[in-house]
Amino acid sequence: MGKQKKFVEEITAMDVDFAQWYTDVVKKADLVDYGSVRGSMIIRPYGYAIWENIRDVLDGKIKETGHENVYMPLFIPESLLQKEKDHIEGFAPEVAWVTHGGEEQLHERLCVRPTSEILFCEHYANIIHSYRDLPKLYNQWSNVVRWEKTTRPFLRSLEFLWQEGHTCHADEQDAMEETLKMLDVYATVCEEFLAVPVLKGQKTEKEKFAGAVSTYTIESLMHDGKALQSGTSHYLGTGFAQSFGIQYSDQNGDLQHVHQTSWGITTRLIGAMIMVHGDDRGLVVPPRIAPTQVMIVPIAQHKEGVLDRAYELKEQLSGLARVDIDASDKMPGWKFNEYEMKGIPVRLEIGPKDIEKGNAVLARRDTGEKEIVSINELAERIPKLLVEIQNNLFIKAKEHCESKTSVAKNMEELKQALTDNPGFVKGMWCGSMACEEFIKEVTSATSRCIPFQQDHVADTCMCCGEKAEKLVFWAKAY
Amino acid sequence: MGKQKKFVEEITAMDVDFAQWYTDVVKKADLVDYGSVRGSMIIRPYGYAIWENIRDVLDGKIKETGHENVYMPLFIPESLLQKEKDHIEGFAPEVAWVTHGGEEQLHERLCVRPTSEILFCEHYANIIHSYRDLPKLYNQWSNVVRWEKTTRPFLRSLEFLWQEGHTCHADEQDAMEETLKMLDVYATVCEEFLAVPVLKGQKTEKEKFAGAVSTYTIESLMHDGKALQSGTSHYLGTGFAQSFGIQYSDQNGDLQHVHQTSWGITTRLIGAMIMVHGDDRGLVVPPRIAPTQVMIVPIAQHKEGVLDRAYELKEQLSGLARVDIDASDKMPGWKFNEYEMKGIPVRLEIGPKDIEKGNAVLARRDTGEKEIVSINELAERIPKLLVEIQNNLFIKAKEHCESKTSVAKNMEELKQALTDNPGFVKGMWCGSMACEEFIKEVTSATSRCIPFQQDHVADTCMCCGEKAEKLVFWAKAY
Ligand SMILES: [Zn+2]
Ligand SMILES: [Zn+2]
Repeated sequence: MGKQKKFVEEITAMDVDFAQWYTDVVKKADLVDYGSVRGSMIIRPYGYAIWENIRDVLDGKIKETGHENVYMPLFIPESLLQKEKDHIEGFAPEVAWVTHGGEEQLHERLCVRPTSEILFCEHYANIIHSYRDLPKLYNQWSNVVRWEKTTRPFLRSLEFLWQEGHTCHADEQDAMEETLKMLDVYATVCEEFLAVPVLKGQKTEKEKFAGAVSTYTIESLMHDGKALQSGTSHYLGTGFAQSFGIQYSDQNGDLQHVHQTSWGITTRLIGAMIMVHGDDRGLVVPPRIAPTQVMIVPIAQHKEGVLDRAYELKEQLSGLARVDIDASDKMPGWKFNEYEMKGIPVRLEIGPKDIEKGNAVLARRDTGEKEIVSINELAERIPKLLVEIQNNLFIKAKEHCESKTSVAKNMEELKQALTDNPGFVKGMWCGSMACEEFIKEVTSATSRCIPFQQDHVADTCMCCGEKAEKLVFWAKAY
Repeated sequence: MGKQKKFVEEITAMDVDFAQWYTDVVKKADLVDYGSVRGSMIIRPYGYAIWENIRDVLDGKIKETGHENVYMPLFIPESLLQKEKDHIEGFAPEVAWVTHGGEEQLHERLCVRPTSEILFCEHYANIIHSYRDLPKLYNQWSNVVRWEKTTRPFLRSLEFLWQEGHTCHADEQDAMEETLKMLDVYATVCEEFLAVPVLKGQKTEKEKFAGAVSTYTIESLMHDGKALQSGTSHYLGTGFAQSFGIQYSDQNGDLQHVHQTSWGITTRLIGAMIMVHGDDRGLVVPPRIAPTQVMIVPIAQHKEGVLDRAYELKEQLSGLARVDIDASDKMPGWKFNEYEMKGIPVRLEIGPKDIEKGNAVLARRDTGEKEIVSINELAERIPKLLVEIQNNLFIKAKEHCESKTSVAKNMEELKQALTDNPGFVKGMWCGSMACEEFIKEVTSATSRCIPFQQDHVADTCMCCGEKAEKLVFWAKAY
């Protein structure tokens, strides 16, 4: 029994306690450890390698679309933060304040950036003068701090890693194009790399970003039927530009305020990946962002030739996929469990009998299926298998999301749907914030977005029964 | 005159005021802008792109040598910081303190990391149990904060970007090997990529890192004859391990403390690059880390065919070098100055006459030399030219450093050398801290390091005249 326990790292079953399952997975798959500051996380090598892969993909797309990376300071003076009223109201309750530098008390408190609109605006006011300076397309990769009351690794933590894009444009049309273009980039990264299907749409007034004219979002649905806001892109209008005096002289020599956007995604995406693809055996990492795509596990490795052959295979396959080998003296059973827990897409088993027959065994993490492949055909089979796994994960997640999407015409149907089949609920909305608040109060579901792809599921508001034109996706959310 | 001024971005001459020259260059070459928090810097796109190139090179080498990236929290609770006495004494005067989160005062102050030994140690105590867990080779890329009184962009700022490696080993030998291996990696990056020659050696007791047993350093010499500490690597012994209880059971089942190392380089390297290679026309960026290696400037670009040909060239050369084009309607003279200021290694001029003859002009930034090259030969010539420039920069810097290195046998000779030929001074040292302090007091030169490559330039200490075995490099330093 003691021996058995070493092999099987037990985690709580998803259906028993999804929150505990999540916590177990992030710990047991070595993604995260906890430090001594409440709510902050240590991102361990495996978690960080996944983040590096997401970051590299997104950074490439950010640069391809003409953006440049910069780095802004960590601290924002309190007086500067006050300049944009809506923005400060939104963030003041959740910022950390530096009051002392070395032994001395500061004349003015400094806030640890919760986001950097204000720093970008101050800089833009310095460097933008003419229409020739536009557009300015900047992005930053950094840490930010939000003083959250309840925290969970990746989903909501005191400090997280992210990128924040901040751009200035000559007019609304150009800024709006940018806002939606970056939302599309986010959707592509989620769907094509994380295999996480997303719903694209606009946030309601109530849910929009503090200081924005309009906020656009990609929403994804987790295994437990809760939604996760996975990325947002904001059209800021000219509000910040007015507060900070960001003006340019146009072709006629007249001064104009710039139109701005901002957009960000965070380490939260790792949380989405875990909760969309994971299962009772642990993590499932989509091949395109997996630090290790194929783990070679030698069987009976003390037998002559096994290890040599295994290392040869690693060498041969290393140009085709990210391949690693576990040649430690742990039992194969332990290794199987360990790499299933870590969600490595493919396990390659090779033992004396396989070698004799010129074969190897490929086990897929997503379905658990095994196939016997001739060693000569591995180089052809593995890249294809990785594509199949990637596609299968996306299709499964998409089907899950669709099967968890209901329609409700009134409050009764909404409550029913949230109980019977927790997930997205499509319902018409009259546009009033009162209805939105009432729905949240009664069901704890919030408006996730007004999807771009509209559908007319009823004529009247789900809540008040008034005439309604807008379809909203509702859900309980992280 | 007004028009002329637009073309020539004037900077202070190096020989007139080197400090002002430096400030002019970082601003005029668009590396940095200042924000509203004293001493913090905005790293602009061009400066950040140079940092990304340095980071990518170093990150590759850190991974090749078996290290894994992680991310530790930004904040360190005060009580945790107290655990290692020497360390806290060294850093307490220069840390920023967070005292409030949102509206509430914290029970315990949090320090914004000035370095992360303590966070790594706390984590290592959790995850290291057996000799099988060793070595642990972690690295982090992050921002850190030090509350400096006087600041200068890249050289000394309130916040800077860096990497910090933190490793645990079974014994001293293994840890010491790591310490010196990473010092060699730093030296390679500096010499082969930044073209900055370095002197490798050990810091004296006085100059070593707070909490280290021994500190190793690479020192480089700036154009003005001042030294810059460009990277350090520390053997920490078992001091931190004892304070934090980082123990492993060895092969016999006995508990042992781990031996640790830490090592870091920062955005300061950009300062080194500026002050080693720059000249009165501005920045000079070594090709291997230059975001743009070749800037195409079309001449008389309104003439038929010029722009088409210029874009064709950009296309053709883009696989061989990082090539950009400035097809804006600014005058060629303005562009020449601008890209000289930015230190772009090669300018490619192409105009109607060149096209007629099938030629283009290549102008090197380092020497100012121009050569006429047949368009058909550009693809062959440019990569070679970039190598020549890279090598020339290193040789010039090496010669400069050698010509600025003197020998002194006593205090008079030391003072004379520092006045007549500011730079490194080689002088023997008895090993007493009193002599080191006296030398600093009298000359403001500090011991830069005890170089690995020793030389016996005298029998007695430069300061006290006692018997001396150790050669030390002395210099005024940044
Ligand atoms: Zn309504
Ligand atoms: Zn002496």
